[in-house]
Amino acid sequence: MTDSADNANFSALLDAVESRKRTLLAYLTQERFLRRFQPAHIRDAVFSYVRGGGKSLRPAVAMLACGALGGDESRALPVAAAIEIYHTWTLVHDDVIDRDDTRRGLPTVHRDFARRAAEEFGWAPDAAEHYGRTIAMLAGDVQQSWSWSLLFEAHLEFGVPAEIVLRLGQDLASRVTPLLVEGETLDVQYSGAVLALDESAIIDMLWKKTGVLYEFAGRAGAAIALNNADAGLPAARAIARFCSLCGAAFQIQDDILGIVGDERQLGKPVGSDIREGKTTLLTLKALERADSQQRELILRTLGAENASHDDAQAVTELLRQLGAVRYAQERSRQTVEEALGHLGALPPSANRDLLEQWARYLIQRQF
Amino acid sequence: MTDSADNANFSALLDAVESRKRTLLAYLTQERFLRRFQPAHIRDAVFSYVRGGGKSLRPAVAMLACGALGGDESRALPVAAAIEIYHTWTLVHDDVIDRDDTRRGLPTVHRDFARRAAEEFGWAPDAAEHYGRTIAMLAGDVQQSWSWSLLFEAHLEFGVPAEIVLRLGQDLASRVTPLLVEGETLDVQYSGAVLALDESAIIDMLWKKTGVLYEFAGRAGAAIALNNADAGLPAARAIARFCSLCGAAFQIQDDILGIVGDERQLGKPVGSDIREGKTTLLTLKALERADSQQRELILRTLGAENASHDDAQAVTELLRQLGAVRYAQERSRQTVEEALGHLGALPPSANRDLLEQWARYLIQRQF
Repeated sequence: MTDSADNANFSALLDAVESRKRTLLAYLTQERFLRRFQPAHIRDAVFSYVRGGGKSLRPAVAMLACGALGGDESRALPVAAAIEIYHTWTLVHDDVIDRDDTRRGLPTVHRDFARRAAEEFGWAPDAAEHYGRTIAMLAGDVQQSWSWSLLFEAHLEFGVPAEIVLRLGQDLASRVTPLLVEGETLDVQYSGAVLALDESAIIDMLWKKTGVLYEFAGRAGAAIALNNADAGLPAARAIARFCSLCGAAFQIQDDILGIVGDERQLGKPVGSDIREGKTTLLTLKALERADSQQRELILRTLGAENASHDDAQAVTELLRQLGAVRYAQERSRQTVEEALGHLGALPPSANRDLLEQWARYLIQRQF
Repeated sequence: MTDSADNANFSALLDAVESRKRTLLAYLTQERFLRRFQPAHIRDAVFSYVRGGGKSLRPAVAMLACGALGGDESRALPVAAAIEIYHTWTLVHDDVIDRDDTRRGLPTVHRDFARRAAEEFGWAPDAAEHYGRTIAMLAGDVQQSWSWSLLFEAHLEFGVPAEIVLRLGQDLASRVTPLLVEGETLDVQYSGAVLALDESAIIDMLWKKTGVLYEFAGRAGAAIALNNADAGLPAARAIARFCSLCGAAFQIQDDILGIVGDERQLGKPVGSDIREGKTTLLTLKALERADSQQRELILRTLGAENASHDDAQAVTELLRQLGAVRYAQERSRQTVEEALGHLGALPPSANRDLLEQWARYLIQRQF
């Protein structure tokens, strides 16, 4: 699918997401927040990805979910902002863990501040590298606290009942973060261990990495709309389940784009997922279907940081040929269809239509 | 002062702290918390310093402050636990930042899991090192969320009004964490930059690193006792100010012990503060008073990872001779005296006496 087809099919959705993103950015870049983070390196690091042009899908979906259940979207703004900044700290830390150099075409936080330590302080390479990681670690830490403070504003500034804020907070603190950290840890432990895994282990890991926070976004939007944090209410359950499945589908699409995506559009080098040895549905399926020679090539290239461009290219081609790409696409399509079944339980509305578009967009997006 | 004198002078305090620590540990090691953290490496990392025998001074002071203002200490338990776990995530991350190998005589989290990656997964040294840092980063992240979830329990399980919990939470999220991260960042940026600094910059940095969380502990204990989160209430202000100053004095004592402390008691190698090039009141004062030859030795040794044991020893001796150790001791003593002035504003009570002992203990402790 080309960019223009993308825009034509999803223009209503992309406009809806874009307008919510503008509201969100205006809220997050208030002077009082800019002043909060010191010294200058921490402030710059904290705002780096906030301003760096992410798609802000998670906060948008929280607001859309709120509206779809008859709520006033503007009351969901601080919770949506909390989710966006929560997601941001995970990105800053994950980039250190994955040793990624770029995100969305710009240097990652730890890379950028390694450079600045060398340039501004004249520090030696090892000290500068360590400084970059230090700033990324501390920036992510203070971002996590910022996300909590945004959640508290839902009550303190926006009048959402304190009880609802505390119940949502408890879900995020005691369930979402542990699952997310578990997913990230498994991702690291699984690298290079693809042979010992099965599909359910991989689906479980990617749901923890991505699905659980989308689920929270849906649940939070519902709680604001219904003025009730009970996750068992039918409408809240339906939308949380919808978001949860879409989040898993989103991550499968990410893994597909990590193999066959366009480098320019993604803002990160293609083949890096292969060289990092990431265990995905695609590598699992490919190994299942490969003959011994193909298997040998895949295993030799996965996780080999110094794998040649040609080898990475050959593995990419192999993943296509063996139908691993198609298999993952089919899996994400089925997941979204299942999600749409839950969405269908909600009364029709403009926001419900947007959420349906969003679900379809997740697995057709090219970046 | 010897250990036995220590125990004799402070036995009532040490008993009081120990009994609160036991209550705290029983609360934190409930089965429901052990189950929360997965996979096994994350769980072990999360509980490593919790069980590793810290003194738990911060939660004890929150509970003592609550009791000193006539509150029921048991109602302050989840808030005290939140402060302890909050402090723990900062330790886990700081150890990565400071590249420390041991804490309280045991391996630091990142060191321990670097070893486990090598032993259990057979990973190469660089990958194992990186894995150690990854586990420490993720464990600290999930500990921060745990501390939030403990704070929320103050309302959800212990009946503290939701409004009070949210106001305390907002103070911790929007003021304490940014100041603490700023202090830690300045500490890193100051390393090797002692010549460009003055005493007020160092006092400001160490208050941010340590004072602000002690201040929060006092304020939180007061809020539970008074059933009111208004930080402007005279009793809350007095106890917060007392704790804030004591926290700064505590950090000065830490810097003194980092130079002249006993390696066995501290559980970390002496001289490491010198080799790390930490900028402290002691190094600042010593450089102020040194002649050109002494200055040269100090500057050459500070921050030189491969400095000889003899050079580190000579600098330690010099810091004593030049009166830098005595100067810092005097500064921490004055700070505690000022703190006790604020404590005097509170009505007499057994808990007030314990807080007074605690203040004196902070600057006489040998580890």
